[in-house]
Amino acid sequence: MAVDRRTSRDIRSESRLTVMRTLLAAGESTRNRLAEDTGLSVGTVSTVVSDLLKHGIITETGQFGGLIGRPTTGLRTNADRGRVVAVYVDVEEAYLAAKVYDAELGELALAEATIEGRLEDADTVIDAIERVLCAALDRARTNRDDVLGVGILLPGGMRRPVKEAVAVPNPIWLHLDRLRDRLRLPVVVENPLKARATAELWLGAGRRCANLVTVTLGIGVGAGIVQDGVLTRGSSDSAGEWGHTLFTFDGRLCRCGRRGCVEAYLGVDGIRQTLAEIAPEHPLTAEAGRRRFLEALGELPDREATDTVERTAHYLGAALTDLVALVNPEVITLSGWTARFLCEHMLPIVRLRVVEESPGDAAADLAIEISSIHDPGMAGIAAVALERFMRDVGLVTTKMLPAI
Amino acid sequence: MAVDRRTSRDIRSESRLTVMRTLLAAGESTRNRLAEDTGLSVGTVSTVVSDLLKHGIITETGQFGGLIGRPTTGLRTNADRGRVVAVYVDVEEAYLAAKVYDAELGELALAEATIEGRLEDADTVIDAIERVLCAALDRARTNRDDVLGVGILLPGGMRRPVKEAVAVPNPIWLHLDRLRDRLRLPVVVENPLKARATAELWLGAGRRCANLVTVTLGIGVGAGIVQDGVLTRGSSDSAGEWGHTLFTFDGRLCRCGRRGCVEAYLGVDGIRQTLAEIAPEHPLTAEAGRRRFLEALGELPDREATDTVERTAHYLGAALTDLVALVNPEVITLSGWTARFLCEHMLPIVRLRVVEESPGDAAADLAIEISSIHDPGMAGIAAVALERFMRDVGLVTTKMLPAI
Repeated sequence: MAVDRRTSRDIRSESRLTVMRTLLAAGESTRNRLAEDTGLSVGTVSTVVSDLLKHGIITETGQFGGLIGRPTTGLRTNADRGRVVAVYVDVEEAYLAAKVYDAELGELALAEATIEGRLEDADTVIDAIERVLCAALDRARTNRDDVLGVGILLPGGMRRPVKEAVAVPNPIWLHLDRLRDRLRLPVVVENPLKARATAELWLGAGRRCANLVTVTLGIGVGAGIVQDGVLTRGSSDSAGEWGHTLFTFDGRLCRCGRRGCVEAYLGVDGIRQTLAEIAPEHPLTAEAGRRRFLEALGELPDREATDTVERTAHYLGAALTDLVALVNPEVITLSGWTARFLCEHMLPIVRLRVVEESPGDAAADLAIEISSIHDPGMAGIAAVALERFMRDVGLVTTKMLPAI
Repeated sequence: MAVDRRTSRDIRSESRLTVMRTLLAAGESTRNRLAEDTGLSVGTVSTVVSDLLKHGIITETGQFGGLIGRPTTGLRTNADRGRVVAVYVDVEEAYLAAKVYDAELGELALAEATIEGRLEDADTVIDAIERVLCAALDRARTNRDDVLGVGILLPGGMRRPVKEAVAVPNPIWLHLDRLRDRLRLPVVVENPLKARATAELWLGAGRRCANLVTVTLGIGVGAGIVQDGVLTRGSSDSAGEWGHTLFTFDGRLCRCGRRGCVEAYLGVDGIRQTLAEIAPEHPLTAEAGRRRFLEALGELPDREATDTVERTAHYLGAALTDLVALVNPEVITLSGWTARFLCEHMLPIVRLRVVEESPGDAAADLAIEISSIHDPGMAGIAAVALERFMRDVGLVTTKMLPAI
């Protein structure tokens, strides 16, 4: 019957993450300024700073002079505390990437690779992950000993085998133990929706507000819901699947097997289908590359392309309204290819539609904006790996990690 | 830039609510058992129990004997600490009800009334509220001095004047100050969605799980989302408007002015429209009373009625799937007239559809059930008034209250 309770230990843990993120945002700061910026007491900040100093996660930067009053000691995050590696695994496209970040989430090096061999074989994928990880470490001249953690960005996130048709099948989710054994490094796995939300908490809109939704618009679409500064995970870590909520009952067939999902209208293939409905003979309907399709569509080459983008903007506005109605965020950030190539055209329509359709005043103070974070999926999974390290050394106690 | 932070003060506050709710559920308990049942430490429970004893909210019940070990002191909530009054205001139907509860949320007396006069005039409504409140207090032989608080259950919850067409218009929301001045009692106002979720936390599924959604199916439909034991309010307290999320893009016109809302299919009028689509000449389509309509439909008088209920079950399953996809609860409870009159017929279809359509394993361990709480709206607003009292005396610090 006992339900998970937050304890004062968890509060200290949250305070550490808060101070760490705030210091990262500030670049350099002092205990007093951190107290001001975080809303925590000076006493709490001092305790937290001691904890973080002890583990080398932040450092003192000498006197931080002021003309008035006694000088205080400056603080900053310690980029050289170690390295975290973000790995992107796209089994469907046989594509892999690994990025090495410093402990301030600054990018150091990137390696990319193609998965050769049978994609449905977990070992093939694990081999490829190991190789691209080593290549990225080489490029960043990073010793394995300096790696605080590895974050694997993996779509899906199913715990149990599911029938092919339902959700993204990804056999590697069933073999995470083997992946960890092979890499011999602390590994954490997260899906892109939650990684992007984590990036927003560390590096983006989460710095200025506590209730936000991060929307990913790519081949798949989905959301990360942050309430009171905490990512909503749900009872089995499956929350955020906005792409598989209803857009039209009994509507277009979604690749998840359900009919009428948001993703079937706002995923890249959904947008292509909208174009095909408007202009069945349009040359872009035959463009096989999804990214190239979006890029070309975003150039608005003709009336049909413009109509497609406008209709998609209405769809997006209507679907975002659902998030406003249900969780009433302060900010919605958009990221992903579609955000990159189409959102500039779409945002005026989207904003208008959301304000008009949201219940009551739920959208009155809402900001809808393109995420300011570079490569938010990778930055986010690096942040998750960093949080995982902080958990391993006892600085973070709140439950937050899904796999491994 | 400072975002609202939870402090250790808030944790103590949450612990007090937790202990209070757990004790209410147990009837009688001891400090050790409370620690076991809540997952809190014995030390925390002891401190919390002292705080609650000091304010007379709980009482000691003498020795709680065991055959083994020394006897310990029993504890129970103190029903006679005072009274809370729940008031239901249905301006649209010119109906009012007031219920007096004891401090254990036990029902003592009910008074009902019709609002006479101009419903759009706030003073008319305020007069009527005052009268029904006094009538209920008389019936419960309760002195005004014993009233710890009054909770007003009011649909809507808009902060700013909205155009007639958008959301439930309810002028009294604009005159809450006058209502409070007139009643000269601590007043709190909450919409039915959040009140029902609060009831579930105090008296229902919230006792056994931390992630749940309470779905209200009546004239209007909506949800209360509980994450980690806390009701999701959103940035302007508007969260939970599931009834105004999309069921079908550009579908049926909803009374909120938007097209295709869930409420236009699952609200009572929506169900009637489904019947009219199946059998335009069906006698029940002319039944003016919404409750009588549901009651009659629930008797499944003919094939058309059965078809309507089945189709509604499919609609409900599809719409609940959205909640599963987005917030991934452990339990969904259903309440409201439709739950009462139709859900027994609908649940098998609903459960099947939710499991089939939810992404991955999000619904694998999900329970969908009819709320076990009697009159959850009123019980919930009474619980909100009790929480408000606990806040007034300093026992509860977490933000939680919307109005007044």
